[in-house]
Amino acid sequence: MKLYNTVISGNCYKIRLLLSFLNLDYEKVSINLGDQEQKTEHFLKLNPLGQIPVLEDQGRHIHDSQAILCYLARTYDAHQLWFPQETIAMTHVLEWLFFANQRIASTLSAARAFHLIKKPNIDIENATAMSHVSLAVVNQHLKTRNWLVGESATIADIACYPYIALAHQGKIELDLYPDVQAWLTRFQQLPRFIELDE
Amino acid sequence: MKLYNTVISGNCYKIRLLLSFLNLDYEKVSINLGDQEQKTEHFLKLNPLGQIPVLEDQGRHIHDSQAILCYLARTYDAHQLWFPQETIAMTHVLEWLFFANQRIASTLSAARAFHLIKKPNIDIENATAMSHVSLAVVNQHLKTRNWLVGESATIADIACYPYIALAHQGKIELDLYPDVQAWLTRFQQLPRFIELDE
Repeated sequence: MKLYNTVISGNCYKIRLLLSFLNLDYEKVSINLGDQEQKTEHFLKLNPLGQIPVLEDQGRHIHDSQAILCYLARTYDAHQLWFPQETIAMTHVLEWLFFANQRIASTLSAARAFHLIKKPNIDIENATAMSHVSLAVVNQHLKTRNWLVGESATIADIACYPYIALAHQGKIELDLYPDVQAWLTRFQQLPRFIELDE
Repeated sequence: MKLYNTVISGNCYKIRLLLSFLNLDYEKVSINLGDQEQKTEHFLKLNPLGQIPVLEDQGRHIHDSQAILCYLARTYDAHQLWFPQETIAMTHVLEWLFFANQRIASTLSAARAFHLIKKPNIDIENATAMSHVSLAVVNQHLKTRNWLVGESATIADIACYPYIALAHQGKIELDLYPDVQAWLTRFQQLPRFIELDE
């Protein structure tokens, strides 16, 4: 199994987290975003969208960090705890995956990209304001729960963790969200948790 | 079954399409976005994100148009054709759902919202340019296929159809994308296809 990835990307970090939680061996292939390596003809064959991460497994290439989480959990988690397959639980996990894919990407992730790598075409005022709207929703949800869905950590938590844990790099403070902070701490205590740069 | 929805929304249209394809009865509850009815205390109890569509079924409320498509197909499509459950096919369907959820939302859907309802905070130049990048990816994919995944229409096609079919409302022309145009025509010929305002 190969993961085309870069250390700094929160989306790639999601996949490294799940691979670690599932205790799976894989090879990291480093993609240099500064050199636009994800836009080369070779890479576009792996993912026509020109984005990392891409997972290579059994000759297949899978893109989109959330889709890769679903694929890995369905394929390698024998107990189906990380991606529950009962329809209601699965639907709620998917709601949070879409939240991570669209809401977190356009708010917390965008704010981080603006401040950390000076990414252009970002309305930082709007991204910052909407980051707080997103965090308030997550905080309210976690007031009565330990995990986003069900009684144990799922790929919903993995999909939402990186850019919330890295919020400070986008100059978003978490002081107002104690339930989010407690959830981050719980997440960091999961067996085989790894840091962004591990 | 109740669908909280508004006619003009492409995201709500996705759900109406699948409900029609599955030949399911439901009640439409019209939400007035002009009055910000989706941000009222009552509505936020149905969906804390303050967005339509929301599906009410068996006492549950499900939000996010893509998650609702997954829920409906898993629950009511006995043949599991609309949302295949074999892992590889499911993963590819999910890749396109995430594409619709994030890429199409931030490009074709954003351009339509800018021109049609004068939605603020949209960088129309970037949304237009990125719409063409998205369309080129879909067109290339459809050069050798009738449907986005597999041999028949799935919720991947439903998730991508509305904002591509409505591209002209965002001043995006489809002249350069003949394979996309042929796919739109095929989609419109599906049994029980309905128009946006039906």
